[in-house]
Amino acid sequence: MKKAQKILSESKKYRIDVGLSNLAAVKGEGCYLIDVDGKKYLDFHSNVSTNNIGYGNPEVKEVVREYSKKGIYKVDGTLTILEEALVLAKKLSKHLPKNLRKSFFVNSGAEAVENAMKLAYLKKGPLGGVSVKGAFHGRTIGVLSYTSSKAIQKKFFPVLPHHELDFCGEKGYCNFRELEDLISRELTPAFVIIECVQGEGGYRPLSKEFVKYLRKITKEHDIAFIIDEVQAGMGRTGKWWAFEHYNVVPDIMATGKSLQVGATIAGKKYDMAKQERGALGSTWGGGHVIDLAVGAKVIEIIEKKNLVKNAERMGDYMLKHFKEIQLKYPRKIIDVRGKGLMIGVEIDSVKRRKKIIDGAFKNGLLLLGCGEKTIRIAPPLIIDGETADKGIEMIEKLIKKY
Amino acid sequence: MKKAQKILSESKKYRIDVGLSNLAAVKGEGCYLIDVDGKKYLDFHSNVSTNNIGYGNPEVKEVVREYSKKGIYKVDGTLTILEEALVLAKKLSKHLPKNLRKSFFVNSGAEAVENAMKLAYLKKGPLGGVSVKGAFHGRTIGVLSYTSSKAIQKKFFPVLPHHELDFCGEKGYCNFRELEDLISRELTPAFVIIECVQGEGGYRPLSKEFVKYLRKITKEHDIAFIIDEVQAGMGRTGKWWAFEHYNVVPDIMATGKSLQVGATIAGKKYDMAKQERGALGSTWGGGHVIDLAVGAKVIEIIEKKNLVKNAERMGDYMLKHFKEIQLKYPRKIIDVRGKGLMIGVEIDSVKRRKKIIDGAFKNGLLLLGCGEKTIRIAPPLIIDGETADKGIEMIEKLIKKY
Ligand SMILES: Cc1ncc(COP(=O)(O)O)c(C=O)c1O
Ligand SMILES: Cc1ncc(COP(=O)(O)O)c(C=O)c1O
Repeated sequence: MKKAQKILSESKKYRIDVGLSNLAAVKGEGCYLIDVDGKKYLDFHSNVSTNNIGYGNPEVKEVVREYSKKGIYKVDGTLTILEEALVLAKKLSKHLPKNLRKSFFVNSGAEAVENAMKLAYLKKGPLGGVSVKGAFHGRTIGVLSYTSSKAIQKKFFPVLPHHELDFCGEKGYCNFRELEDLISRELTPAFVIIECVQGEGGYRPLSKEFVKYLRKITKEHDIAFIIDEVQAGMGRTGKWWAFEHYNVVPDIMATGKSLQVGATIAGKKYDMAKQERGALGSTWGGGHVIDLAVGAKVIEIIEKKNLVKNAERMGDYMLKHFKEIQLKYPRKIIDVRGKGLMIGVEIDSVKRRKKIIDGAFKNGLLLLGCGEKTIRIAPPLIIDGETADKGIEMIEKLIKKY
Repeated sequence: MKKAQKILSESKKYRIDVGLSNLAAVKGEGCYLIDVDGKKYLDFHSNVSTNNIGYGNPEVKEVVREYSKKGIYKVDGTLTILEEALVLAKKLSKHLPKNLRKSFFVNSGAEAVENAMKLAYLKKGPLGGVSVKGAFHGRTIGVLSYTSSKAIQKKFFPVLPHHELDFCGEKGYCNFRELEDLISRELTPAFVIIECVQGEGGYRPLSKEFVKYLRKITKEHDIAFIIDEVQAGMGRTGKWWAFEHYNVVPDIMATGKSLQVGATIAGKKYDMAKQERGALGSTWGGGHVIDLAVGAKVIEIIEKKNLVKNAERMGDYMLKHFKEIQLKYPRKIIDVRGKGLMIGVEIDSVKRRKKIIDGAFKNGLLLLGCGEKTIRIAPPLIIDGETADKGIEMIEKLIKKY
């Protein structure tokens, strides 16, 4: 029996089975993950966008090696200030509008969004909040209330008071008055939260007019406008942050994944935690020495290798190719869309999507679904033309076959 | 200007100010933290119980050094199965009752409790839950609903339906019928959650009879009994888990802190995630390679060095000493209590407590409050008599002085 098989089957006994795990990964190089038996996989979703700079980067390895000497890896970040947190916050602020300067680092994207919401509540009290249909903001119960990408994710759990706006994408009809209607019924929310490009919801960009409208109305009514950049941020869409495509600036932002830690970033107006001392916190918030240091190195590598630009260029290249494939198989591929290296290839049926994803896995290509029947194309931002072609060709063959 | 001062003041510009951080720590050795200027602090709360094995352990350093070669540090643990997660789950199961065998690793104690609650909801649907007054289960809004150790922690935020039982400690009157009364009013909850020894709430053990009563009633009414071992677990109280002092076994357990990752651990009956595929998840859940590996090493070190036994022995020793000091200053110290190395020294006033804690910091001793006016005594479990005496003497002097 292969070692991967052994780990997977033994894990059944000791692991609460939460997912469709089928890969026992052990190391990585560039755009490839390598499993415990040495099988190589081209990762076309960057481990759900957690590894934008790819795997096995020697500078990152060196950071971890240096930190191995420290003998402190996780401390309570509420009690201890780490220089690593300061360095990371400064590096982030270089790539953010002046208004977004202050960070609180936490342990996950979900915790980053929870704290973004909390900053809004600190100013407004425990009102409801507003999100967009199809959104995904994380799994903790607070942010899950604002999540609606898949019914199973929340159907068993209690929810906080919330309202979901209709999704308004780049095509199709949009009801622009929904938020104002809500407000006029005196249901002014504490915040409106969006992903500029929905992730789990299907790699779907919101319409420009819609995002601008939400920014305008939230400003007029003094409602906190939160943008969730956990999946779309860190260069993924060909800009540092997806909101740059929309010419808006949020009041509060959340990011995570490729940053290696969750981050809640607030403008002055919502920097309320000091006045209400003790209202925010988390044991390891700002206290994971290695993750903070690796996060700073990730930003450096994105800068040095011009990966934001590469995401834009390679994104255009891959989008063009998938549109060409769509022209060949218009019945099987019903939409191709996206920004930078966050491309959604929508298949006509859930069944066909499954066949394609499973077939890819057998051939050593990692694909991942999102939305109802979309495949996400989100390789590491370091990808080159040759590697992209390899994955695209494999996908084209599978689409032809199934 | 000292470097620590510089980091602290510069952090004001870039950090959402969540706490009373006054220490710029950089490394550690044994029971001591060392700040960026080389000042040594005896850590009498183990960074809020996150470092039970102390700092700078050479075997832990070696683990991190080994992992630095991997080039993958954080992956999506829903998609990828890591051998490190399997190894950790197995190690944990050796120290747990047979019923508690399956783990889901997440990023924080809060996420561990969130997922414990979710497992209960998966079985029962979105009913309310029951906790105990003074409890602390974390900062994400779901678990915060069940937290009541300090008003500021939740006063601005919305809450889920919940009920708080009166605290029932080792002394004083207890209303044993409260839970049954609730049930008879047809408000049967999805779960009852407790800390056997409350942490943030004041290092207060619950009464044995109360915990047994809750176990009995939850069993009779088929309610999930969740025990939160995030702070009290991992040997802290002189047993691996605080619930061992109470001769009960929970249906679901949460731990974290010293384990280096959050863990939700479930018995068979509540291992429901597989049937409801997609209901649980988290990007880095089960996916932090280094933390998982360090967590396994922490367990090994606790085993090898007999630290659970040492926590019991040194706990008895320190408890005795603090009781003696109480006899000398009965007006200033109003209670001394605890289990193992989780000792609460309750001061007569908030003001005096502050003076003692601030005075200790100046003298290089880290103390931390809990409850209304208690000081927590929770040094690393590796502490020896000499080091304990040093801290105790310093505290006695401060109590005499203030
Ligand atoms: C847009 C968005 N927000 C929040 C999250 C939650 O992040 P995490 O899984 O790290 O808690 C995710 C995770 O996929 C996400 O895509
Ligand atoms: C008993 C208990 N539960 C849960 C938590 C939350 O853990 P974390 O801060 O890692 O989210 C804590 C933290 O202090 C705790 O003491």
